Amino acid sequence: MRTLIAGGTVVTATDTVRADVLVVGEQVAAVGSDFGPVDRTVPATGRYVIPGGVDVHTHMGLVTPTGVSCDDFATGTEAAACGGTTTIVDYAGHEYGEPLAAGLERWMAQAEGRAHVDYGFHMMLREVDDRVLKEMAGLVADGVTSFKLFMAYPGIYMVDDRSLFRAMTRSADLGALIVMHAENGGPIDVLVERFVAAGRTSPVEHAHSRPAGLEGEATARAITLAELAGVPVHIAHLSSADALAAVRAGRDRGATVHAETCPQYLLLSEDDLRRPGVDGAKYVCSPPLRPAGHQEELWRGLRLGDLEVVATDHCPFTVAQKAAADQFPGIPNGLPGVEERVTLLHEGVLRGELGLNRWVEVTATAPARLFGLYPRKGTIAPGSDADLVVFAPSHERTLSAATHHSAVDYSCYEGLRVHGLPEVVMQRGHVLVEGGRFCGTPGAGRYLPRQPGPAA
Amino acid sequence: MRTLIAGGTVVTATDTVRADVLVVGEQVAAVGSDFGPVDRTVPATGRYVIPGGVDVHTHMGLVTPTGVSCDDFATGTEAAACGGTTTIVDYAGHEYGEPLAAGLERWMAQAEGRAHVDYGFHMMLREVDDRVLKEMAGLVADGVTSFKLFMAYPGIYMVDDRSLFRAMTRSADLGALIVMHAENGGPIDVLVERFVAAGRTSPVEHAHSRPAGLEGEATARAITLAELAGVPVHIAHLSSADALAAVRAGRDRGATVHAETCPQYLLLSEDDLRRPGVDGAKYVCSPPLRPAGHQEELWRGLRLGDLEVVATDHCPFTVAQKAAADQFPGIPNGLPGVEERVTLLHEGVLRGELGLNRWVEVTATAPARLFGLYPRKGTIAPGSDADLVVFAPSHERTLSAATHHSAVDYSCYEGLRVHGLPEVVMQRGHVLVEGGRFCGTPGAGRYLPRQPGPAA
Amino acid sequence: MRTLIAGGTVVTATDTVRADVLVVGEQVAAVGSDFGPVDRTVPATGRYVIPGGVDVHTHMGLVTPTGVSCDDFATGTEAAACGGTTTIVDYAGHEYGEPLAAGLERWMAQAEGRAHVDYGFHMMLREVDDRVLKEMAGLVADGVTSFKLFMAYPGIYMVDDRSLFRAMTRSADLGALIVMHAENGGPIDVLVERFVAAGRTSPVEHAHSRPAGLEGEATARAITLAELAGVPVHIAHLSSADALAAVRAGRDRGATVHAETCPQYLLLSEDDLRRPGVDGAKYVCSPPLRPAGHQEELWRGLRLGDLEVVATDHCPFTVAQKAAADQFPGIPNGLPGVEERVTLLHEGVLRGELGLNRWVEVTATAPARLFGLYPRKGTIAPGSDADLVVFAPSHERTLSAATHHSAVDYSCYEGLRVHGLPEVVMQRGHVLVEGGRFCGTPGAGRYLPRQPGPAA
Amino acid sequence: MRTLIAGGTVVTATDTVRADVLVVGEQVAAVGSDFGPVDRTVPATGRYVIPGGVDVHTHMGLVTPTGVSCDDFATGTEAAACGGTTTIVDYAGHEYGEPLAAGLERWMAQAEGRAHVDYGFHMMLREVDDRVLKEMAGLVADGVTSFKLFMAYPGIYMVDDRSLFRAMTRSADLGALIVMHAENGGPIDVLVERFVAAGRTSPVEHAHSRPAGLEGEATARAITLAELAGVPVHIAHLSSADALAAVRAGRDRGATVHAETCPQYLLLSEDDLRRPGVDGAKYVCSPPLRPAGHQEELWRGLRLGDLEVVATDHCPFTVAQKAAADQFPGIPNGLPGVEERVTLLHEGVLRGELGLNRWVEVTATAPARLFGLYPRKGTIAPGSDADLVVFAPSHERTLSAATHHSAVDYSCYEGLRVHGLPEVVMQRGHVLVEGGRFCGTPGAGRYLPRQPGPAA
Repeated sequence: MRTLIAGGTVVTATDTVRADVLVVGEQVAAVGSDFGPVDRTVPATGRYVIPGGVDVHTHMGLVTPTGVSCDDFATGTEAAACGGTTTIVDYAGHEYGEPLAAGLERWMAQAEGRAHVDYGFHMMLREVDDRVLKEMAGLVADGVTSFKLFMAYPGIYMVDDRSLFRAMTRSADLGALIVMHAENGGPIDVLVERFVAAGRTSPVEHAHSRPAGLEGEATARAITLAELAGVPVHIAHLSSADALAAVRAGRDRGATVHAETCPQYLLLSEDDLRRPGVDGAKYVCSPPLRPAGHQEELWRGLRLGDLEVVATDHCPFTVAQKAAADQFPGIPNGLPGVEERVTLLHEGVLRGELGLNRWVEVTATAPARLFGLYPRKGTIAPGSDADLVVFAPSHERTLSAATHHSAVDYSCYEGLRVHGLPEVVMQRGHVLVEGGRFCGTPGAGRYLPRQPGPAA
Repeated sequence: MRTLIAGGTVVTATDTVRADVLVVGEQVAAVGSDFGPVDRTVPATGRYVIPGGVDVHTHMGLVTPTGVSCDDFATGTEAAACGGTTTIVDYAGHEYGEPLAAGLERWMAQAEGRAHVDYGFHMMLREVDDRVLKEMAGLVADGVTSFKLFMAYPGIYMVDDRSLFRAMTRSADLGALIVMHAENGGPIDVLVERFVAAGRTSPVEHAHSRPAGLEGEATARAITLAELAGVPVHIAHLSSADALAAVRAGRDRGATVHAETCPQYLLLSEDDLRRPGVDGAKYVCSPPLRPAGHQEELWRGLRLGDLEVVATDHCPFTVAQKAAADQFPGIPNGLPGVEERVTLLHEGVLRGELGLNRWVEVTATAPARLFGLYPRKGTIAPGSDADLVVFAPSHERTLSAATHHSAVDYSCYEGLRVHGLPEVVMQRGHVLVEGGRFCGTPGAGRYLPRQPGPAA
Repeated sequence: MRTLIAGGTVVTATDTVRADVLVVGEQVAAVGSDFGPVDRTVPATGRYVIPGGVDVHTHMGLVTPTGVSCDDFATGTEAAACGGTTTIVDYAGHEYGEPLAAGLERWMAQAEGRAHVDYGFHMMLREVDDRVLKEMAGLVADGVTSFKLFMAYPGIYMVDDRSLFRAMTRSADLGALIVMHAENGGPIDVLVERFVAAGRTSPVEHAHSRPAGLEGEATARAITLAELAGVPVHIAHLSSADALAAVRAGRDRGATVHAETCPQYLLLSEDDLRRPGVDGAKYVCSPPLRPAGHQEELWRGLRLGDLEVVATDHCPFTVAQKAAADQFPGIPNGLPGVEERVTLLHEGVLRGELGLNRWVEVTATAPARLFGLYPRKGTIAPGSDADLVVFAPSHERTLSAATHHSAVDYSCYEGLRVHGLPEVVMQRGHVLVEGGRFCGTPGAGRYLPRQPGPAA
Repeated sequence: MRTLIAGGTVVTATDTVRADVLVVGEQVAAVGSDFGPVDRTVPATGRYVIPGGVDVHTHMGLVTPTGVSCDDFATGTEAAACGGTTTIVDYAGHEYGEPLAAGLERWMAQAEGRAHVDYGFHMMLREVDDRVLKEMAGLVADGVTSFKLFMAYPGIYMVDDRSLFRAMTRSADLGALIVMHAENGGPIDVLVERFVAAGRTSPVEHAHSRPAGLEGEATARAITLAELAGVPVHIAHLSSADALAAVRAGRDRGATVHAETCPQYLLLSEDDLRRPGVDGAKYVCSPPLRPAGHQEELWRGLRLGDLEVVATDHCPFTVAQKAAADQFPGIPNGLPGVEERVTLLHEGVLRGELGLNRWVEVTATAPARLFGLYPRKGTIAPGSDADLVVFAPSHERTLSAATHHSAVDYSCYEGLRVHGLPEVVMQRGHVLVEGGRFCGTPGAGRYLPRQPGPAA
């Protein structure tokens, strides 16, 4: 089967070029012109042809103390595909005392047969003892080459610095990457208690109880420990200028540190938490949305390369779930976003915040490279998987829960006018979206064992 | 009783002036000339007349897991007095579960009847729960207005960030000061285990297991938490450029942070830990001695004011105690120094590292002010206690265990040629040292209830 | 003649103490109590007794291209005295080609017989050639131990970096101090031209044409050149956070840099330049008043010691002079302030911006020390000149041109309610102000040859 | 004419992929496989296929006060081609008073008919007046879209800050880029005079007379002025950690600043200037070679993106020219390097200093993009010029003047063992080098009018 994506503007992390893309079977065969006869032609005139997006931070069907995130691997990856994302890396976890492999198996079971797009896993470690340290090797062998640790959420995920450091030195030995949730959970819990005692319980107090200074502190600490352990560290969902400053300082002195931010930190702010009634609760996530002044710093970080990846931390809860608690500590933490990411960043291009190639780099190439999926994913090059998006940059539309594909019943961007539509989305040569309409098959997505990336 | 210190050069934190000092009873009555008849004249021609030194960091008779520090309040304060120090603030502690007041009482009992010089106490908190938080008020009422917390020594003193933060917010309410041992103990313990497992057990490995980066990290963290809690924080025994950088950054953004260093960090280095045989063990303390390059930064910090206080962390162990362990983790942590501090810093003056007034400021005025003892202690002014030192700046001598007054049987500065001798030392008008010879009476020292200083 | 300042609170840079001050002849004889009989007693109960202020930046009768500053040495030093300032260091200058000594002589002639308070001189260099370099030695011998250079005002004072550097290396050899006007005059002139061409000619455009970035740049450059030349540099009239950051960076890496700010930069802002009509023009000075956000940074710099001195840059022009030009480039640059400085900084004490001792330090002790006048000036200590101010801290009053003593016909602080009055001002034991009323004699002020300070 | 580069590993700034490259006529037609019949096949198995290098800093036949650089456009571009560089941007200049267009014409005349590779020009401005400002528009129209200014070389190229700023604001209006030689020439000249007077005249004193601090200062100043002017600035030949720190600070606050370094700053050091006899003189260039410690910082800057471009500042002089002067000020400034650049940076890849894609990015893609030559030059993509290099990465060889192609009679890297040879070099489909042997035709290179790049 030979398919030609014809007449489009191929955009990669480096190049912007008028060219056809020839797909043979599941891979890209060539980029250019002057090819022989094909079986099928996908017209792309006036469109960008970009690599399928890679979202390295999702939580499909995540069980949390305040509820289960409402997208499973079927609905969540349908949303991803419709948004131009053809690869996700979800966070697998384990129970206290449970073998890591057993945890991974459960996540595998949830994805298999349901996922529309290819998927990999990180593993979230909630305890670090000799058993866990030993089992980490097995995970790496199975293609789970990154371990997430938490400096927040005491009693649920948080481990102390001794444990962080042990896991880091172990990862260094295994060539794996550490992913860090960098907020200092202990003082946050004290603030939460004090706020609740003082009757400060509205959604915006969630943000006040998790000040940016405690994210900056934890980020700096994570980097210092990782340097000492000789392991690369990836700061997940970086939300503040404070944390960015810590990343910069680390890089400037030679630390191997990577960082991702999310569209919500680039585009939303603490003000959204002040929306009246249940609306404020819809915007509760951790790290929290910050005062709007942080956005400019984050865009700059993205431009300059201190922020390398844009992921979503997609972890949606329904309005009912969000509204169930009277006080902010009971509101489930997490926002939807897997579907809007590529388009929202394209808005950044139109606003002049980043260039076209950088758009592709931060949403596809860099995450694939960093998390061991490159060159199979994240680029358009001969031999790469034919994960391709035909993106109509001038298609105007309005974001809305009424039209999105996630199972969640609200949108953080309800009513936002945007430009750009993933018209055709193809994974390994198979069409998932055509004319903006989803036409995928559950279970078509395959598990992606990952290699230790260049980062590791 | 009217005493005249006659003909000397009175040096305070601001002034250097030829003047007589008139002492009436236990206080300074006037500085100048042209006084009436006196009962006694202490000649001071060619000498500096300086305020008695204030050493705000001592551990007399401290019980540690590896032994009891070998100076008690009698020998330790004799040493202090002979070195020109007339006030100490020692660290009282408590057992797990023990009321703070009971701990304080034990320390009081050890000092009373023995101390030659006036003394106050900090309280070391080794646990932070509702009981302890409540009891802190009683300590402040008793004049113990500073609480020390530890980010190191897990299982002995270390508390987690949640506890640090609770204690800080409580101190803020009480107007008390937080003193911090800022090293990240968790990763240090991992390193120690790894080093021992790898057979790296010599004294210098003590330093390698406690890298400066972990002091810098902890210092930055302490400052961030204190800012958030709204409490002033004092960084004890700052030893490295890394920690100094954290202090500077905090001050430059408006945090209320103070810091002390010690003569050993200004003058000794990691190289001393490499001395052969038991000699290396003599230099084991925490934070550890650093590579010599840190010294220049610390001197600069002292000149510019980022380091405000020079204390000693006097915590001596005998050579036998130091030599008892085969491996560095078993070596008791601590160095003697209470006797040499004023003279060693005077060497800094002669080397051009700091000015004469700054010498007095960092060894007497600033610590008295910061720890709520000023203006009673730390200066020469009408109404202040007549704690006075007639210091002969050109008296050359050799530091040695053979001649010092501490009970410890070695000196970190053995054989060092120095200039300067506290010839006459007077506390509240009573002579403790005359002609360089000690003539004090045990128990003459009195307890000093402290006020929340200007810092708090 | 023996005078007793009785019952006050003596405040120095270090101490705050209830004590009497005994003055014998022109000097302080003693501080304390218990003195013998005196000829005269000045009651000071409830008052601060502080050293006479030292203002190291004034321009009495300065000839500028847009007019002559309207205070001469008589009116200007009367104003100074009434404000509690008993020493000034004025800026002498020279014409192109004129021997430095001739310039100095002219300034001497203007001061002699007129000045009410003691005075010294800096020399402003407007050209640097072999002759000037040679003549600098003579100035130092005559007690002019600081040379001011300009990085702004092309065609009037500005010299290029080659000349700056030559003068700096020469000063290093002479042990003299470099004072710098640090704004980059070249680009400023281009901006001025562009603004005028664009019709942007109102007073606030004066500020816009001299952006803080160009002060920061010039400050950093001055420090770099001075480091290389091995000479201490004093940044005059520092007005912005940008310049302060440059000073901090220099100090933190070991450069010998000092800096002064002025009350106008601490208390006034760019908004004052937006006052309607001629009122905006009253606030034109260089560097210009900055957006209000800079003030907090400057106060912090003053607290932490990065700013060591508060001077005034007193250079008043009458409303008529200020109003003569239609466009901002024609407005004479300069503000009055010599009279309000000590009181305005006392307001800073009341607002909690700095402590009582620091108030005395920045307005008297530090400038005296830095500019070679200490210990004769700037402190209250036996042997120092009896330049004393009895300051009533709770005396409320309103600043106004109607009541001030300067010859200028407006006040930048018109209507401002302040606390504190220099009730009695004494120079070398002679009373200049009594009960807040001036009673000096023209010509009582003496020339002060200065020593290279500790800075040099 | 259809040519296939077959079986190689195509390396671009993003991708590393096994693929063929199809060249049709002078352009790349496609990258991939599965193409139809071709006229010619260039085997590339086991080789990298990379875009032809772009060297944006050369001085062919430059007339300097101490001699003419010894490569003209013929020999210099032959050397370039043999080193894998197929595009240069040389610096045209003008005489004082000469129309810019006339200067450009002279440079054009020197290149035309001689150059083997395509070439563009920057224009060096040595004076900035109304005439020059006006003429700048014509240059931009002719494709000279960058103007170089000098903060060094008084009397030859240096202009003052006023002129810099005027040229910058003009460039901003024209959409052109400013290139800066950032060293503070005034103080350097003073140092040179002092050194010569003191008999310090050996080549290493050249470096001492141009300390890194003066490069850092000038770099910071250039960035500040450019920010204010609203123009992008490119720092040429950045040599020191000091200057890199200034670039970082600028970028972190949002300034549009770019920077290039050169192989000599990455690989050589001040120690080379200490070589005995004439050998030291061979290494004289400006900015000078720095102490070796700077290299690590520069490599890091290259990795992190703060340094975007590696160019050569190729400006060779013969040994005779280098040896003519007794004293360092007489030695012509400049080093050869155009031929070794691509290979030397490949050594950086082998040493782990940068990745393979980054190698291509800094030597080809980024300079092409920054200087308005992209996508025609700097990448391998359909539609781009078929400027291709078949690079044998494991070919070991020894750099030597005996084998290089430049007209200069020494090599800075004489005897250095390197890995990698540009076996085949093709420009616009025409073979310039085959089997490592040059086979070009003088005059085949064409003038490249440049567009204002994305930077501008």
